[in-house]
Amino acid sequence: MTTVIDTATSTDVPAALRDHLPAHAVDTAPELLEAYSTDWTRILPPSPAAALVRPSTVEEVQATLRVAHSLGVHVVVRGAGSGLAGGASAIAGGIILSTERLNRILEISPGDELAVVQPGVITADLDRAAGEFGLRYAPDPASSEVSSIGGNIATNAGGLRCAKYGVTRESVLALDVVLADGTLLSVGHRSIKGVTGFDLVGLFVGSEGTLGVVVGATLRLRPLPVRTETLVVFTDSLAVAGAAVEAIVLSGVQPSIVELLDEATLHNIDAHSGSDLAAHGRALLLIQTDGYGADREAQRLLEVTASVGAHGRRVEGAEAERFVELRRSGRGPQPELWGIGEDVAVPRSRLVEMILAIEEIGARHGLLVSTVAHAGDGNLHPGLSIAKRPGETGPPAVLETAADELVRAALALGGTLTGEHGVGLVKRQWLAAELGEEQLALQRSLKHTFDPTGVFAAGFLQEIR
Amino acid sequence: MTTVIDTATSTDVPAALRDHLPAHAVDTAPELLEAYSTDWTRILPPSPAAALVRPSTVEEVQATLRVAHSLGVHVVVRGAGSGLAGGASAIAGGIILSTERLNRILEISPGDELAVVQPGVITADLDRAAGEFGLRYAPDPASSEVSSIGGNIATNAGGLRCAKYGVTRESVLALDVVLADGTLLSVGHRSIKGVTGFDLVGLFVGSEGTLGVVVGATLRLRPLPVRTETLVVFTDSLAVAGAAVEAIVLSGVQPSIVELLDEATLHNIDAHSGSDLAAHGRALLLIQTDGYGADREAQRLLEVTASVGAHGRRVEGAEAERFVELRRSGRGPQPELWGIGEDVAVPRSRLVEMILAIEEIGARHGLLVSTVAHAGDGNLHPGLSIAKRPGETGPPAVLETAADELVRAALALGGTLTGEHGVGLVKRQWLAAELGEEQLALQRSLKHTFDPTGVFAAGFLQEIR
Repeated sequence: MTTVIDTATSTDVPAALRDHLPAHAVDTAPELLEAYSTDWTRILPPSPAAALVRPSTVEEVQATLRVAHSLGVHVVVRGAGSGLAGGASAIAGGIILSTERLNRILEISPGDELAVVQPGVITADLDRAAGEFGLRYAPDPASSEVSSIGGNIATNAGGLRCAKYGVTRESVLALDVVLADGTLLSVGHRSIKGVTGFDLVGLFVGSEGTLGVVVGATLRLRPLPVRTETLVVFTDSLAVAGAAVEAIVLSGVQPSIVELLDEATLHNIDAHSGSDLAAHGRALLLIQTDGYGADREAQRLLEVTASVGAHGRRVEGAEAERFVELRRSGRGPQPELWGIGEDVAVPRSRLVEMILAIEEIGARHGLLVSTVAHAGDGNLHPGLSIAKRPGETGPPAVLETAADELVRAALALGGTLTGEHGVGLVKRQWLAAELGEEQLALQRSLKHTFDPTGVFAAGFLQEIR
Repeated sequence: MTTVIDTATSTDVPAALRDHLPAHAVDTAPELLEAYSTDWTRILPPSPAAALVRPSTVEEVQATLRVAHSLGVHVVVRGAGSGLAGGASAIAGGIILSTERLNRILEISPGDELAVVQPGVITADLDRAAGEFGLRYAPDPASSEVSSIGGNIATNAGGLRCAKYGVTRESVLALDVVLADGTLLSVGHRSIKGVTGFDLVGLFVGSEGTLGVVVGATLRLRPLPVRTETLVVFTDSLAVAGAAVEAIVLSGVQPSIVELLDEATLHNIDAHSGSDLAAHGRALLLIQTDGYGADREAQRLLEVTASVGAHGRRVEGAEAERFVELRRSGRGPQPELWGIGEDVAVPRSRLVEMILAIEEIGARHGLLVSTVAHAGDGNLHPGLSIAKRPGETGPPAVLETAADELVRAALALGGTLTGEHGVGLVKRQWLAAELGEEQLALQRSLKHTFDPTGVFAAGFLQEIR
């Protein structure tokens, strides 16, 4: 099931592409190739890609795949390049296919509560466009101002609001996909429900560009809530924060957002934002409720979190927006450190155990540790970092060791190695630890069914690099 | 990609099964075989199945599959037998594998808001058990008192509340599955989120027993709502009912239930339940809202439905339960008629168009027509029927003709041939019309990847009968 394509082919890939595509769609300038060869992980291929293709039409995507398929050249599909797992890292000698010019919102239907979009649409732009109709696109990865719908679909992106509204998968009704040989396939339906055949929509969502290129998506929209309440709940210890999260889960209220920021994160945010969060407690829960009962729900959450010793209050208007913005902008750049940002998820009841495990791992290896969590669904983003030493050209091995222990700790708690960022190149090493060899073999067979010659070389199941 | 198994094998299947299973797990009594050879469609195989296996353990399921795989005998997996699409119709000479004895609720975790169950658990039993912890299992097919979780997973069952809470897929976190060769595979995770590899959970849900036997499921539970409001909204015409549904969608309220019953349905219910629904209007919308804002939401829905001319009121307690029960029990038996019950879904904005198309088809063919719809998500259950004539031994061809026109009308409106019942034997004829030949070929390849020798012979992708 390993790939059969020889990437060291001597064929003139750019010339072949230009034979079938408009000149402006194909680029080979080295600086462009480099810029488009990695996502936010900065993982570059050992030698350059052969060409960057930026199609403006579905037909141009099909033509690109037909060329790649016939030449036996790998293709890596790329959204906005904001991935955190190396899922869009280019292949040496391969084609980079960017969906950025397929960026139109084709339809917003209030009656059907859906949007039909091209993959290059920026997620927050769609949300704003839906807002004009009293609707919203619920999934909101922290990257929503820069990431695109196609990339969100590729990684099955989560976000803050998915505690209540579900991840990207729950908002995708139908997809148009170009397969490895250039075939255009439409899967799913415009109706909310439908069970005809295997759920290929679900299979494409989260497949990280390994099965096909999403060139169109029909997305479910939700009503804009009539009311949103924001709570900031500080606690004197992480343990109390954990108890507060448990109390929220048991309260019967489904908040739209439950973000947990630990003490180190509060200090980091204060350092680059001028805020004074850390002065108010050792952990912060940022909570939102929305809908017709938002005020009552917020009141209930203030009560249940107070009952375990947390100090909460309602914030409104600009103050509420400021807190959400501080959370979204995150911990800020730390150029004096080597760092790893993680993305694991555990059953919600194991959240505090996981945070304690992270602290223990960090302490044992002499690392700085900070953790932000989408506590409403058990998804943690721990940061591990260590000061750069004079003369060091790369991160010390201890970071990798700690990350390995961290991922295995999440698995041991019944969790998963990636909650929402994807596997990509970064996390392939742990695939078998979570899936087991039998499931991994089955996943490879699935990939082979869709893409027998291994055209789509991105990410997590490819044996090459 | 057609099956390679010869069902006419002369091997002594029961003896081979008894070699590997406890005696009480294997039955061959003709009356048992017949009873277990069909679901509510009453579609029987042309000659009897070879054996009925009712395993009590996962190991017994594995042993059954190993025997079937080695002998080359087909297996049809069966839940509670309440399917409406012939997905559990047995194969001549094959094995019927019933999951009814795998019926334990293994865990309910309030902290993780989930349940771990065996497939034979009756859906409503799980919901009641969750209720003791202040939780509920949200998917509620009308059959929930008789259908099992395994069958719900096989068909990706919907129900009344899925307008707000999603279909079965949205409540399945993880599955244990026995594959065609007896391999036990665990897919998914106990965490709410997780994107490691292709979404095999989503692929098994709705696969109608064609990929593997679900022997365990980790299911998401939701808080029991603090408050539920019930509205009955009668209208003087179907057009006003349609306008009311549209007004509900545009209101920004997400009701948990929006059921539409047409005039013929009201008469049918009155006839077998002693109710007087039809005296109050020509169509009924039965609506529920739930949660902390349920009362405000109900008030808003009364306003928006009144604004289009509907007459709504709040009902409480026993009266509310009675209305829900009348809806759930449905149209009642009509032994004097030949009938077909349909299950199509359309984009919500096309609901009234679809109902009018159904009425036109019925009128043109001289049929009785009644329609119930999960209007909140565009899923319709039209009934087509015609009086039995003396001497007729089966339904007249006109019923099939009308059903064909009905399904094609749904597809023409951008809908699907099955919203929640599944394809099974009943709807295989329309698969290509919805999916197209290319997608159908891909779906067959997928089936082949999981089950290369075609052990799982149920339903929609098998070429045999």
